[in-house]
Amino acid sequence: MAKRIFVGIDLGGTSIKTGICDEEGNLLKVGEGATETELGTERVLDNIVACARKIVDESEFSWDQVAGVGAGIPGFMDAEAGIVHFAPNLPLTNVPVRKILEDKLGKRVAIANDANVAALGESWSGAGKGVPIVVTYTLGTGVGGGIVVNGSILQGGTGMAGEFGHMTVVPDLEAIQCNCGKMGCLETVSSATGISRMAVDAVKRGDNTMLADLPQITAKDVFDAARAGDETAHRIIQRAAHYLGKSMAMVAIVVNPNRFIIGGGVSKAGDTLLNPVREAFRQFALPRAQENVEIVAAKLGNNAGVIGAAGLCLR
Amino acid sequence: MAKRIFVGIDLGGTSIKTGICDEEGNLLKVGEGATETELGTERVLDNIVACARKIVDESEFSWDQVAGVGAGIPGFMDAEAGIVHFAPNLPLTNVPVRKILEDKLGKRVAIANDANVAALGESWSGAGKGVPIVVTYTLGTGVGGGIVVNGSILQGGTGMAGEFGHMTVVPDLEAIQCNCGKMGCLETVSSATGISRMAVDAVKRGDNTMLADLPQITAKDVFDAARAGDETAHRIIQRAAHYLGKSMAMVAIVVNPNRFIIGGGVSKAGDTLLNPVREAFRQFALPRAQENVEIVAAKLGNNAGVIGAAGLCLR
Repeated sequence: MAKRIFVGIDLGGTSIKTGICDEEGNLLKVGEGATETELGTERVLDNIVACARKIVDESEFSWDQVAGVGAGIPGFMDAEAGIVHFAPNLPLTNVPVRKILEDKLGKRVAIANDANVAALGESWSGAGKGVPIVVTYTLGTGVGGGIVVNGSILQGGTGMAGEFGHMTVVPDLEAIQCNCGKMGCLETVSSATGISRMAVDAVKRGDNTMLADLPQITAKDVFDAARAGDETAHRIIQRAAHYLGKSMAMVAIVVNPNRFIIGGGVSKAGDTLLNPVREAFRQFALPRAQENVEIVAAKLGNNAGVIGAAGLCLR
Repeated sequence: MAKRIFVGIDLGGTSIKTGICDEEGNLLKVGEGATETELGTERVLDNIVACARKIVDESEFSWDQVAGVGAGIPGFMDAEAGIVHFAPNLPLTNVPVRKILEDKLGKRVAIANDANVAALGESWSGAGKGVPIVVTYTLGTGVGGGIVVNGSILQGGTGMAGEFGHMTVVPDLEAIQCNCGKMGCLETVSSATGISRMAVDAVKRGDNTMLADLPQITAKDVFDAARAGDETAHRIIQRAAHYLGKSMAMVAIVVNPNRFIIGGGVSKAGDTLLNPVREAFRQFALPRAQENVEIVAAKLGNNAGVIGAAGLCLR
């Protein structure tokens, strides 16, 4: 019998990333196409279909070998029903994406939120391989996340499980308002945006820091400065890591994972970030919920999305 | 074919409560026996076996109709392996309880933590019946909890999932130390012990309250005083409810349940407690994670334990 393959789609506002995986989660081929968001719903869906067909056509595999197609989509959806309710950067408001793609592709299709899909990818064949309960934090513009229990994404009642960025962890006296309207969300301090914002505040306040010389300050600049011995940058990283570890301590006694995986752009800082996160986690977590819990960096980088999407069809 | 029945055991430090349930979670009969903790491990296990046999013997059902026996145990365990690691009030340290009971009973046996089992009971045939994702808080001496996803308990990697009592929710400036050693745990303010402690503190401080006349102050006294218009008691209940609602807001964006159920002795206060909890939940929860989420009182009372234990065998 010919090998079964799975096609993963990582849908973004600008590009559609594609991948072919085998049943073990090995990424065999990657591809990319344009989303063409501005051309509307139908065009975006047709582009997804074209990208899925193209990567298989250009591979050593035949379309008959495709056992399923999965798509990670940045938005709010009923993953089980396959309906995207709202996606901030895509023309997909109340669109039955799964049904449409199944009709056009003639294959079984599964969809899920992009952060959840990345968590599934890391759990299936990345830093969480073989681990029963995995929690992934994705630190980028915001803070996303996902929970994978024995190979399945925990979606939640309305698809909102794993939205760690909106846990209230910053004390009132130092809290600022989040984009969501609430005060003290994790995202306000531990995202790339949050780290950059704290640096800009420090410079405005006149703190002594090498960051003051930069025209714009990115999270990467803050990590670089911290590693170069800048005290202000170091304090900002400590703060971002502190609240991240504190939120993990709470997640540890809610779902009690075996492993936390930190991914997204900010995670490239490695141990400069991870060590203070581990320290805060130990400070706040119930001793019994710390046992055998590891906090590690993600392994798959940008490929977590297409691998996890391919993996959606296996469940 | 004869009806299949399930025997549930709710093991306590003093008594062993038993129940017979049908496949739909209807409680058909209840019983009780002594634990005799002081007589050691073997005696406790023999008493469980005797209680399980006795309730069936005294019923209209035959032993052959028993499809499984489940036991809820107050302690730390590997539920999947069936081994109790440590139970504060029972002689069950590293005891393979499931294997021993299976050998003695000749039936399939399942065990789980008592708070998780109570959550399963409410989810199966109580206030969470028919609801996909249910989170239960049990407010008693401490604050316990459980998460049930599509009829299965989420145990966590080391059996610590649902330990909501140790979420850090009280700000540093007003936090006290919890029995677990950490500061600001939910349990320090929202358990019966926490409510009573806050009342004792208020009386010591000289606050104007009718509670000052009582020789001892229970959580029930505080609720009664609040209902009678006592301002101090009212403030204490608001505080207990506030942090409970705040912790639920965080659980709502971690596992995103469809329904929260509040059980345990403290929950008897009804809407005096639930209304301010709902208010705090709305204040802290991400709007999209609040949609279609209900906060309700438990329905099964003390029977949640035996019903949930019986339900363990259905999964």
